[in-house]
This record gives sequence, structure tokens and C-alpha cells, in this order.
Amino acid sequence: MPQELIDRHQPTLDSALAALATRDYWSPYPESPRAYGEPFALDAFHGHDLLVDQPGTDGRVGPDLENGGEQSPYGPELRVGYPHAGDPEALVAAARAAQPAWAQAGPLVRAVVCCEILAQINARSAEFGTAVMHTTGQAYGMAFQAGGPHAQDRGLEAVAVAYLEQTRLPERAEWTKPQGKRDPLRMVKEFTAVPRGVALLVGCNTFPTWNGYPGLFASLATGNPVLVKPHPRAVLPLALTVAIAREVLAEAGFSPDLVLLAAEKPGEGLAKTLALNPAVRVIDYTGSTAFGDWLEENAVQAQVYTEKAGVNTVLVDSTDDYAGMLANLAFSLSLYSGQMCTTPQNLLVPRGGIATDQGHKEYQQVVADLTGAIEGLLGDDARAAGLLGAIVNPGVLQRIERAEKGEFGASALVSRSVPVDGFPDAVVRTPALVTLDGETDALPGECFGPISFVVAVDSSAQAVELLRDTVRERGAMTASAYTTSPEVESAVIGACLDAGVSLSLNLTGQVYVNQTAAFSDLHGTGANPAANSAYCDAAFVASRFRAIEVRRHA
Amino acid sequence: MPQELIDRHQPTLDSALAALATRDYWSPYPESPRAYGEPFALDAFHGHDLLVDQPGTDGRVGPDLENGGEQSPYGPELRVGYPHAGDPEALVAAARAAQPAWAQAGPLVRAVVCCEILAQINARSAEFGTAVMHTTGQAYGMAFQAGGPHAQDRGLEAVAVAYLEQTRLPERAEWTKPQGKRDPLRMVKEFTAVPRGVALLVGCNTFPTWNGYPGLFASLATGNPVLVKPHPRAVLPLALTVAIAREVLAEAGFSPDLVLLAAEKPGEGLAKTLALNPAVRVIDYTGSTAFGDWLEENAVQAQVYTEKAGVNTVLVDSTDDYAGMLANLAFSLSLYSGQMCTTPQNLLVPRGGIATDQGHKEYQQVVADLTGAIEGLLGDDARAAGLLGAIVNPGVLQRIERAEKGEFGASALVSRSVPVDGFPDAVVRTPALVTLDGETDALPGECFGPISFVVAVDSSAQAVELLRDTVRERGAMTASAYTTSPEVESAVIGACLDAGVSLSLNLTGQVYVNQTAAFSDLHGTGANPAANSAYCDAAFVASRFRAIEVRRHA
Repeated sequence: MPQELIDRHQPTLDSALAALATRDYWSPYPESPRAYGEPFALDAFHGHDLLVDQPGTDGRVGPDLENGGEQSPYGPELRVGYPHAGDPEALVAAARAAQPAWAQAGPLVRAVVCCEILAQINARSAEFGTAVMHTTGQAYGMAFQAGGPHAQDRGLEAVAVAYLEQTRLPERAEWTKPQGKRDPLRMVKEFTAVPRGVALLVGCNTFPTWNGYPGLFASLATGNPVLVKPHPRAVLPLALTVAIAREVLAEAGFSPDLVLLAAEKPGEGLAKTLALNPAVRVIDYTGSTAFGDWLEENAVQAQVYTEKAGVNTVLVDSTDDYAGMLANLAFSLSLYSGQMCTTPQNLLVPRGGIATDQGHKEYQQVVADLTGAIEGLLGDDARAAGLLGAIVNPGVLQRIERAEKGEFGASALVSRSVPVDGFPDAVVRTPALVTLDGETDALPGECFGPISFVVAVDSSAQAVELLRDTVRERGAMTASAYTTSPEVESAVIGACLDAGVSLSLNLTGQVYVNQTAAFSDLHGTGANPAANSAYCDAAFVASRFRAIEVRRHA
Repeated sequence: MPQELIDRHQPTLDSALAALATRDYWSPYPESPRAYGEPFALDAFHGHDLLVDQPGTDGRVGPDLENGGEQSPYGPELRVGYPHAGDPEALVAAARAAQPAWAQAGPLVRAVVCCEILAQINARSAEFGTAVMHTTGQAYGMAFQAGGPHAQDRGLEAVAVAYLEQTRLPERAEWTKPQGKRDPLRMVKEFTAVPRGVALLVGCNTFPTWNGYPGLFASLATGNPVLVKPHPRAVLPLALTVAIAREVLAEAGFSPDLVLLAAEKPGEGLAKTLALNPAVRVIDYTGSTAFGDWLEENAVQAQVYTEKAGVNTVLVDSTDDYAGMLANLAFSLSLYSGQMCTTPQNLLVPRGGIATDQGHKEYQQVVADLTGAIEGLLGDDARAAGLLGAIVNPGVLQRIERAEKGEFGASALVSRSVPVDGFPDAVVRTPALVTLDGETDALPGECFGPISFVVAVDSSAQAVELLRDTVRERGAMTASAYTTSPEVESAVIGACLDAGVSLSLNLTGQVYVNQTAAFSDLHGTGANPAANSAYCDAAFVASRFRAIEVRRHA
């Protein structure tokens, strides 16, 4: 079975490694839904009871809401049941028991088994699209792509980087040290990558697969069994993932307990319990800054990888494509109702206005034109619904209502409700734009959701300093700038290198600051408070395993 | 100046990278003292006042003992003065101010400047030999090699691994994504390695340069300024290092404050103060488990690399070279009086005896023969002094005295004093061997110094389990085994992979378990409690910097 998997997936692995070296576009997973057959109906999930074979469980989570079941941001209940992780120690013990054979399998076998898991996930992308849509609120098109093929890309990227890192040392080396007139010393040395221990993935609500797969597959490919603790509102996509992984592992001759779902009922605090277990040696987390900081400070026995919250800045200095800039920004602010860790929040515009290919534009004109671009983009309800998706949770909705009341500042654009065909209970809202004056108004902290701020600043030089300070103090997953000035460009690049955030410059076409491409772009940097790691550099995998050497005389 | 350094050191860097890939023997630094001219007299250091140009200082440490000056384990005072780090905040501020230009210099310029620092250190190896001898107590020959060329090897290894890791991403990449019938999307992406922040090196007493250079050069080569906090008893070797580094950096056009000595007076707790400074983002530490654990648990703002204490095991099952085994073990136990983190402590021997090329040897015979081998090796006082070195501190001496009193068990070999020519106050002691019974006696924890235990065990199978448990519970920097049995070899390899320690098998010649070779052997694994990292794998450098991306339409 492993040899068959090697034959099947080695070419994919090789292509992934080649793409990682050149950072050119590459993906083995078509991103068009048309490649995957008919859409999957939500109803088809109803009544499913997943992962009934798992150890360490007592009773079920779901399918009823009262028992921890999920409700779609579009309204319907999901009505799926999962094993309740009532005995965390037993889950950890099962994972540890599964580890030795997986550790001994070696980097290549682990990599191709992971490729097979991803291939089977890929074949069911339509199912994942529906599962991600109805747990995150993403519109179907985005849920399919970001939650399906693009998440699979990030998973495969992690598998490839893990394989590369584990094979940096030769399996066998000869060492010959000259000794003058005497015979040389000769040694033979063998190097083996060994896993660190049990890994824990703590999933998030908005991108359960896209943010979950890098850590899950990096840990698994380096030999660590993985406990998957999903966000209580987004269990289904990760439960399906775990179910597929367990099937593939068992078929390949390994214990399915290398991947275990750890689902909880509301308020049980299972992530904290598992994170402090001494056998848990790797943790991946995406979510709030408060819990990410808690993990970094308390789970000291583990290598902890976090992606937390930040405030993303756009510096608007000048442009030679005013219409393209407005269209690009309007799309970035609207996509998934700004509920991405990468969505711009603060747009810094000089109060004296900006130079454009359509002439000088006053600050107020820029605000009005951006407002118009958003309204134009979202004028048609069906198109708007397909871009905005639904509001993921009540906290975001409350924040929109605060913006409507003017609590954050003067409204340039007020959020409105958008109806969604077939989902009368869906909560879908267009973005709100608030104007602030950088001289008199304090800039708000992270304001997750469809609320952005157009901030009048004295100059682009001041904007550069504001960007730098915001990244350093609040953290940022992205930064963006529009300028035709080499001096401003140089200054903003310097500020981004200094503060530790990646920069998108003058995006006016179909590439958006919110989005990164696996095998080419890094997601996050690890160099500012928003995240302590990046998808997927060497640092993201190199500490998930250790090299053990056996040496002897030749 | 940088171009001249590139021309001078690029070939060395290329050779280091090639050696790292093959793990064959390589070094640019001759290890024979004869290559470096006359030995350096200790007196020549007297009255020196080093690093008078450093910022952040108030007054001096040393030269008098009452003011924190150093006394050689061989007796004499060193009588050297150092700047006292009276203002840690000012030291950190000076380091931060020095960082930007160094960060902008790029991986290649940083690498060759580090190569030049190492080359100038290498040229003064005789001076380092004497400085290391009279701070650590190592005999001159070892102090010269381990503290000189071999430490320089480990420093250069870190520079090369750092260069390799920082250049894994291309500086510039083109990304072209097909769009069906439309024009493809084209982006240009640039990647830049940026440093993490201020680095702190906390040095140790026994190997200030060998254990200090990997972290120092890994941090510096990745763009981080380094605060060097030496052990109060071993300041001189690192102060000389800092002085050379500062000179080379200034000559190359960078701020000398990229490397700063942070010397303290007894009891000031400077390492704790610096470790908790928010700007300190990387810490390297070698020393006690207690302080290493404290750093891992408290300096959560920093990436912490520790090498702590462990209990190293030798499993003696059988051998086809009994004389070679005894000679190899006798040397390993005697070298630097067992004051190496890599010295074997527990020798496990089946109580029923072992098979050898000289016939079956009872447990007591093995003990007697090992005792004889040590006595033979150390029978001549001059030769003994040249191998043993001096006892590094009073704590080790007290432990020897406890062994003499039988506090650890029955003595098979009692430590004796050895006189040293020219140093009447030197404290030099031969190893003590204590016999224990694995069935009735609890195995002691780490017993740093020249005290080892020959433990009678039921079987080699039991010995394998004892080795595994000891590594898991106490940690270990090394493990060693002698066996001619494929089954026992397989079992002990399995236990070492499982517990996370590297293994030396059947060493009977001039390679010793205590010693590892840069560019080939890893030192430590990071996989057991003795250390959380290894010299020098990718994980040791990959988190010392981050990659920042700038992308734009092509």
C-alpha cells in the first residue's frame, strides 16, 4: 500500500517542491466548482453521526442545538452529531499509542499518505464547500474555493515543506578525518527524523480548513499524531477532514487514532485542558489574541504556533489607476463582509488629497468615490450576497450596529441588509465606512467585520509612521499601499520590513490584499503581534520534529 | 569593505555549505596548536581593561576578586577588568540602535562579516587557549582545541546554516496564474529576511566559547544584535570574542554595538533582568536545568534555546574489542574530569557478565578492568594532568568528597589528587567509579564531575529500558552502547529514537562519545529534557528571523 501511494503521489510532491523553490503559481487542485460535479445539499448532512468509532468519547455533541449542535449563519441547523471528547486523557493516550509505527514510517511514506488524505478531501470538495458555507457564513463560491482547493493547497504546501525539512540531513553519511601519517578516522552516521509528540490543532470559526490544514498536515507529516479541537460553531468541516484522514490512515496500514476529533460542548474549555497536557508538544491555533497569548504564555511544554488578531492598514498616497484602485479596495472590503484576518481596516488618506490619473482628488472625494465603488459592486442583491456571505456571529452584528449609531465616528457609508434567496434567516450586511481624522481621533483597535475607517492624515510621511506604529502595537496580517512616488514606496517598504508585515503594492486588478497563494505567498510573518508564525516557511515545520543520529566506526 | 570580505570568505562559506550537505569531515581551522605559534602566557592578560568603549556601563567588573574578577581553577587570579553592565536598558537600546543597518545588509554580507570575526578569533587561538584554560580548568591542549578551532567550527557552522536558511526563498519571484481565455494574472514578489530583535547569549563556565558561539553567530548572522552575558567565572574568553567582533563590525562599516558584553558582579541576576526585557526576542543558554527551565517558562516573549543537564548512559552488552572498549571508556570518563555535558555517567553492565573477544567477563571483572584501564591511562602525573584538567568549581569538589565517603555507593575506584607543574594550587582529581545494583539501588540524578556509576543489571533488555527511562526522565546529551548482537543493537537504537537521544555504537578507537564534530554531528537533539535544541540544525536558526514579502502587479 505505501509503495502504491508513493507511485501515485511522488510526482505531486516533486511538483510542490519545485513550486516552493520558484514561488510561481502552481496547484494540483482545480479551483472551479465545475470540476467537482453537482453542489452538495445541506440537507444531505442532516442526521449524520460522524466518527462513531473514536476512542476517548462519552456521548455526543449535537445534533441538537441544546447539545452543542451547529446552526448555519444562513439560518438552518446542521443537525450533525460528533463524538464528545469526555475523556481527554484517553484521547491523548490513543494518539500516543498510534505514534510509534507512524514515526517509523519515515518522511516519504508520511508525505504520500498525507497526499492521499488531501486527494480524498479534494474529491469531496463540493461537500466541504457546503460544510464551510454553513459553519462560517462564507458565500458558497468562496466557501468552496477557500475552504476546498485553496485550503488543500495550504495543506499540501505544509506536507511538502515538512518533507523537505525532514530530508535535509542525509539518511546515511560517511565521515573521514585525516590523521597525518596514521590511518584516517572513519565513521558512518545515520540520521532519523523523530516526531516531537502529540500535536493539538485548535480550529477557528471563519476558516476551519484554510487555517487548520497547515498545522494539521505539518504536524502529521512530521510524525506527530494530531488532536483536532474544532471551534464549536465550525465542527463539520474538520470532522469530515478527521473522518477522511482516519480512513486513509487505516487503509494504509496505520492506526486511525493518528488523527482524532476533540469536540466539546459549550463552556467546557477543552482547548485549555488539552493545551496543558504534558504529552502535547505542538499546538496550532487561530483565533482571538487573548487565547493565543494565553497559549504562548502557559503551554510552555509545547511549540506553539499562533495566528491572532491585528489591524490591517492601507496607505493611499497616489495612483495611476484610480478606478482600478477603488474597484480593488471595494472588493477587498466587501469579500466575506470583512470577516477575514487579512481584510484592510484603516485606510490612510492625506487630508490634502491624492494625485491620480483622473487628476487630484480631495480626501472627501476619495471617500465618496470609494463609497460609490462599494455601492456599485453590491448594488445587485444576488451578486452582493454571493460576495458578502453571512455575518458569522452575534458579536460582529453588534459591532455593525455600533457603527450605525456613530459610536466609531461619522458614517460615510452605512451598512444595509441584503436578502439571500432560500435563506430568509440569513444575516447579510454590506460594509460600513467610517471617517476619522488622524489628528483628533484615536484609531480604533481591531474591529473585526465589515467596518473600515478612512482616516485623514497630514501627509503620506505621517501615514507611513502610523502604519509602522499600528503594525508594531496592534499587529497586522497584511499591509497595502498605493503610490506612484518612488520615495513614498521606499518609505513604506522600509516601514513594513521594520515593523514586520508583508506588503501589497498598487493592487488594481484581480489580486486582492486579503488573499495569498500557497506555494508562493507567505501568510503572516511571525514578526509582529498578529501571529508568531507564517504559512509555510521552514520555521513553521522545523521544530515539529528532531533529528537523532546513530554513529559507529566504519 | 563588504565586497572585499565577500571575495575573501565566499569560498569558505561555500565549503561549509557543501560539508553540511554531505556531513563529511571538514574544517577551515587547523586544530594543532603548532599552527598558531607560541603559547600565550597567562601573565600577558594581567592588568588588561577590556571593552572600555562600550555603552551602558558604570564602573568595572574585576580585576580584583572582590570586584568580581576571575580566579583560575589552576590557582592564579586573571586580573582582567571588564565594563560593568550597570544600565541594562541602555545596553538594549544601544543594540537596537545598531540593528537597522545590519538588518539591511542582507544574509551574504552578514555571513562574510561573521566569517571575518571568526577568522580573527582563529588567528588568536593561542590566546583563547590560555583564556579558556584558566576560566574552565580544561588542560591546555583541550582548552586550545575545544575552546579554539572546534568552537570556531561550531560558530562557522551556525553562520552557514543561517545563511542557507535565509536564502531558501528567492530574493525575487514571478508568479503567473492562468485565467482561461483571459490574460493571466502576473505578480512580482520580493522576499527579505528580517531579524527577530535583540538576542541574548547566557554563557556557561565550562565551555564559554564552544557552547557560546553557535547561538552568538546564529543570531548575529540572521541580523540580530547580541548581548553576551558571560558566566561570572568565565568572562575572559567571551570578552575577547566581543572585543574582536566589535572591531571587525566597525571596520566593516557597522555599529560595534551589534555585539555587547553584559558582565555583572556576583548576585546581580543580570541574566534574569535581560531575559525578561521585551526587546529581547532570542535567548541562548547553556547551564543548569533550573535556570534553563525558568527561561523556557518565563521569557515567553523570546525564542529560547537551552542546553541543560542530563544523565548519559552507556549500555555494555558485548564487544569484539574488549581492550579498545576499556581504553575508549577510560578516556571518556577522564577527559576534563568528566565535567562535560556529554560525559557518560551510568554504565549498565549485566550482572551475569558480557561476551568479549577475550572470553566471558563477569560484572566484577569488567569493573576491575575498567578501573585498571583508568589507572593505566592516568598513571603518569604529567599525562594525567594534561587529560584531566582542573576541577572547575567547589561544587564539583564537594561531590567528589561525597563519593569518597561512599555516599553514592561502594567505591570501585577512588579519586586521587594529581599535582600540576607550575600550578601548586590547582585542584586536579582522577575519576571515581561507584558500583551500584540496578535491582536494589536507585540510580542517582545528574552527578556532574568525575564520578561515574557501573550499574549491575539483570539483562541487556533491562538495560535498554533503563536507558530509555533515564533519557526520558532525566534527559541526556549522549548515549553509547557496546554490543555485537544485532537484536540488542536494534533494541537500543529503537530506545534512543523513542526517547530522543543520539547514539554512539561500539566506539573503540580515537572517537569518543563526549565529542561531536561540527558540520557532521549534531550536538544534542532537542528531543529530551537535557536540551530543547541542537547544534546546528535548521530549527536552531529558522526562528531567529522572519521573511517579509513585497508583491505587486508585474
